[in-house]
Amino acid sequence: MRVRHKPWAKNKLKQHSDIVIVSPAYCSGEWYDVFGREAPLHVEIGAGKGQFIVGMAQKYPDYDFIGIELNESIIVSALQKCLDAKVGNVRLIRADARGLTDFFAEDEVDAIYLNFSDPWPKKRHEKRRLTYSSFLARYEYVLKNNGVINLKTDNQGFFEYSLESLSAYGFTLRNISLDLHRSDFKDNVLTEYEEKFSEKGQPIYRCEAVCHE
Amino acid sequence: MRVRHKPWAKNKLKQHSDIVIVSPAYCSGEWYDVFGREAPLHVEIGAGKGQFIVGMAQKYPDYDFIGIELNESIIVSALQKCLDAKVGNVRLIRADARGLTDFFAEDEVDAIYLNFSDPWPKKRHEKRRLTYSSFLARYEYVLKNNGVINLKTDNQGFFEYSLESLSAYGFTLRNISLDLHRSDFKDNVLTEYEEKFSEKGQPIYRCEAVCHE
Repeated sequence: MRVRHKPWAKNKLKQHSDIVIVSPAYCSGEWYDVFGREAPLHVEIGAGKGQFIVGMAQKYPDYDFIGIELNESIIVSALQKCLDAKVGNVRLIRADARGLTDFFAEDEVDAIYLNFSDPWPKKRHEKRRLTYSSFLARYEYVLKNNGVINLKTDNQGFFEYSLESLSAYGFTLRNISLDLHRSDFKDNVLTEYEEKFSEKGQPIYRCEAVCHE
Repeated sequence: MRVRHKPWAKNKLKQHSDIVIVSPAYCSGEWYDVFGREAPLHVEIGAGKGQFIVGMAQKYPDYDFIGIELNESIIVSALQKCLDAKVGNVRLIRADARGLTDFFAEDEVDAIYLNFSDPWPKKRHEKRRLTYSSFLARYEYVLKNNGVINLKTDNQGFFEYSLESLSAYGFTLRNISLDLHRSDFKDNVLTEYEEKFSEKGQPIYRCEAVCHE
């Protein structure tokens, strides 16, 4: 996503430290305390401008959601969406996805979302893909037994790669769709990117991968 | 495949009992003897008119191939292709795929091919799909450890179902292609159906599933 630099973003994020968690590693193992209840914990990696996670939070008020996004100028839009929607069940973390195992304890997370992740199509960039084995190891660590990775993408090569990588790692694939918007999957919450992209009529790919320990 | 009834087919198949095996159950565990050598054994289920298996036999003279096809009026075309191509490394079995575990011993087969299998799209026909769990159990039985199922189809729903079913059964998926004819897979041998179908420009799906014991 190309995005305008917002010099005021850092300050705004600081002002809302109730939503944008400043020291997420201190919350590891204690996210129930952060949210003040014992609800299923759903984490989006690469939350972007937050349309998906805020939409999910509204659709599923009994779940708690955490969006991880590295870019300050982007995550500030997600913060604004949280404020506008007045959702109490979303927290944001401005960080790299590699920190996942610092932010969450073993078996703390119920579900992970990877939406339209950067495909890094060049073979020499394979290790950067969010479905590369080193990332899957992090997801496996934080996910509960039978926890689920939910993946959506418009990139055919990234989807093929991800199915293979998830399968090779030992996740069980289910609810595969090769054309999500013409499938019978009813509960799709659109991301910003998906909304724009799907107008062109090109297929969106989706799958779920179940974690066994 | 809609096909004209050929009353002369039965006789022709009988005349070539060197190629069309009359009592395949007697060959179980002894296919090396049938072919007169110890070569990798590749089995196509639903071999149709034989373009694929004869093409494979020509491309891979060091492998032995067995095509299973139920329909007499169709398999007779496969026989004719074997005769025309003068391939010595193909045998045919006129039978239902359910007989697989009668025709082959445990761990006897190196690879299985499922090409453009009937998708049986109605949920109530799920058990007839060649990637339904009861069929996967048969494949697992006859396949060696690290044996491979090679699947091609033009049917999106059947492909989605097959990926899920194979994954749930414990096969590892690899070499997934969502558009085979525009992929970098170089060794594709076309089936009759694929040749006609691909001219329309619609995608062909392919995957391999590795059997672990």
